[in-house]
Amino acid sequence: MKTNTVKGTNDWLPAEMKLRDYIQNTILETYLKNGFNHISTPVIEDAENLDKSEGGENLNLIFKVLKRGDKLEEAVKDIREGGDEKELSDMGLRYDLTLPLTRFFANNRDKLVMPAKCIQIDRVYRAERPQKGRMREFIQCDIDILGSKSPCCETELISVTAEALLNLGFRDFRIRINDRRILRAVLEGLGFAADTLDSVCISFDKLDKIGAEGVAAELTEKGFPEKAVEGLKNLLAGELPGLSKVREVLADTEDIDRLESIIASAKELADGRYDIVFDLSLVRGQGYYTGTVFEIESPKFRGAIGGGGRYDNLIGKFIGESVPAVGFSIGFERLFSILYETGYTIPTARKQVALIFKEQDFAAAAKKARELRGEYDVSLFEFPKKLGKFLDRLTERGYYGFTVYGESEEIKLLS
Amino acid sequence: MKTNTVKGTNDWLPAEMKLRDYIQNTILETYLKNGFNHISTPVIEDAENLDKSEGGENLNLIFKVLKRGDKLEEAVKDIREGGDEKELSDMGLRYDLTLPLTRFFANNRDKLVMPAKCIQIDRVYRAERPQKGRMREFIQCDIDILGSKSPCCETELISVTAEALLNLGFRDFRIRINDRRILRAVLEGLGFAADTLDSVCISFDKLDKIGAEGVAAELTEKGFPEKAVEGLKNLLAGELPGLSKVREVLADTEDIDRLESIIASAKELADGRYDIVFDLSLVRGQGYYTGTVFEIESPKFRGAIGGGGRYDNLIGKFIGESVPAVGFSIGFERLFSILYETGYTIPTARKQVALIFKEQDFAAAAKKARELRGEYDVSLFEFPKKLGKFLDRLTERGYYGFTVYGESEEIKLLS
Repeated sequence: MKTNTVKGTNDWLPAEMKLRDYIQNTILETYLKNGFNHISTPVIEDAENLDKSEGGENLNLIFKVLKRGDKLEEAVKDIREGGDEKELSDMGLRYDLTLPLTRFFANNRDKLVMPAKCIQIDRVYRAERPQKGRMREFIQCDIDILGSKSPCCETELISVTAEALLNLGFRDFRIRINDRRILRAVLEGLGFAADTLDSVCISFDKLDKIGAEGVAAELTEKGFPEKAVEGLKNLLAGELPGLSKVREVLADTEDIDRLESIIASAKELADGRYDIVFDLSLVRGQGYYTGTVFEIESPKFRGAIGGGGRYDNLIGKFIGESVPAVGFSIGFERLFSILYETGYTIPTARKQVALIFKEQDFAAAAKKARELRGEYDVSLFEFPKKLGKFLDRLTERGYYGFTVYGESEEIKLLS
Repeated sequence: MKTNTVKGTNDWLPAEMKLRDYIQNTILETYLKNGFNHISTPVIEDAENLDKSEGGENLNLIFKVLKRGDKLEEAVKDIREGGDEKELSDMGLRYDLTLPLTRFFANNRDKLVMPAKCIQIDRVYRAERPQKGRMREFIQCDIDILGSKSPCCETELISVTAEALLNLGFRDFRIRINDRRILRAVLEGLGFAADTLDSVCISFDKLDKIGAEGVAAELTEKGFPEKAVEGLKNLLAGELPGLSKVREVLADTEDIDRLESIIASAKELADGRYDIVFDLSLVRGQGYYTGTVFEIESPKFRGAIGGGGRYDNLIGKFIGESVPAVGFSIGFERLFSILYETGYTIPTARKQVALIFKEQDFAAAAKKARELRGEYDVSLFEFPKKLGKFLDRLTERGYYGFTVYGESEEIKLLS
């Protein structure tokens, strides 16, 4: 037997699960209190739906499910006759929660209040090369608002997500925010052609990693006009321009007004507990974002803790009717590892106590345990061969205390 | 786009998820209070592990995951050269939580307290022909005790599982219990050969569905000795024999003593709230059970709500060292549909209220919503085009009330 989990997946031990459950419950409760609704979709989705979902690089990372029975036999026969291996699979494991949400919306919109405010906390799968902090099975925590273009949606998502982090004891984080339409307008103003902006953004997105010089070099290599690249380098040379400076150079300021109003009301709701800053360099990878994009980061930890944005065209592509949408996703696994590694104490944790009994006392001991469960989580254990070793083991596993049935009422502390 | 979920899977709507979350949390909390530990394993397992897991018919129902990259190319090349289609897959979706638990135990036993008391509440997958109450993706709620042969384990699992059901408001259920070794001894006593008992049990297991005559006919057809079949028919003709009657006909009564002590202490812990009855006809399908088997049923609903048993040899087959084990599984989906269809009211449910605002008031309204969240789950909605229709929709979706920001402080009831 292979005792390890399959590559890129994890077994979670009791102490880890306690924290994972606590984080998930805290996030879910925060979202529910804020009037969002918990929904759930299957892990398996139709292969074609996944393929058409604009998931960018993630489309290459889909775990595919083999056909079964006659359909598999047919596909294998086809392959033997020179057919395509794509025929082997008709379903796949979802690589995110946005495509399933889109399908869910199309399937159930008449049963929802509009705009629909949805919570999803669930597993997703990507066949990535596993490395620290990047797994093949992991949990995402998403909230989305479907069916409204209002800038209030962005503000609300930011505020509610931030509240979940505050409830988990996170402090000193900040939310970077941008609008892709503003970034594109700035880049066009510098002389990049409108139909090349996706490629420019891909390079621009690497600013964090390779710096302004690196971005400029890459754009030159890609053959962009020297003047435009030079202009961008100058723009990035100093501090990135703020919204008011961007306003000066753009003809159309509607998107700027919108972003400014989001930032203003998000700051009002933040009430100084966290910061919201405009950041012209924020791009985010997904192909489907159409406007606002945002990311949460903490000065204490590298990389983003969460992120999201507006994707007004994605649902329409699937259901043939325009439905604006915006979402914010918390990187659950990142949150978990930060909290676990820093020795986070769960404020609501109940203490675990062992009640040790001899076989003939079992039923009486079990009744005694019921009384103790008002205050403690109580595990029943038969009197072990080596009590000392057994108690050591309980101590290592975080048990708070023990008592031997029939010996004393008192709970003896372990430490 | 295909808007339906893939065959045999479900989207779960907000009202359904509220109940599903409540059931899961109630079961999990009950199990945690009883000193069991929540663990989690991946949905994907190694294909060979699954194949060797004695899952009986379930092995034919495994969803297999296609290999990726070079390995897939190699497998496809092999197939074109006449190779086996089994090469196409290296992993599969788990069909139950017992095989993953076995692997988990082998992988982590040095990090657990022994005997290990584990909780798993998670999704499993079976490529069955979907029908009412039988899905391809569904949730199981299991508790298992690994590493002890004591009859106290059986009693504890019965008592703790029953407590979860009581906490969910279930009443009038009863637990049927048997020991496969007793059943086998009785059958041997009737003249069935020891090495044919698996086949006899498969027919015997159908007693509920086809009756004593049907079982006898099937056994005759299978070619079993006439005298033995006749003896079994007579045994089943009247009421099934109780433990004391079985004791009279068996030479070795050790297993009977053990079962009697389990029933006695389980009854003591039940305290009249539910019943535990010996039932010689209880078999249960899984190949891996070695001794005690049990099932929960309610007179109000056909079929079992949960079941389990002792599987002392399964872990040993995987890790080459004997580790006795026993488990009890609640059929979550069955529980959910019973409670949902009977209009179960969640005792701890918070009321959901809509706070309707005009765009310019958003930040102030969001602050007002915070105050209301002490008592209610509050959803923010922008003032809709047609307020009347919108309020109707809120009512249909189970909202308790609404208030319009700036108009009045009062929450107006919807109904």
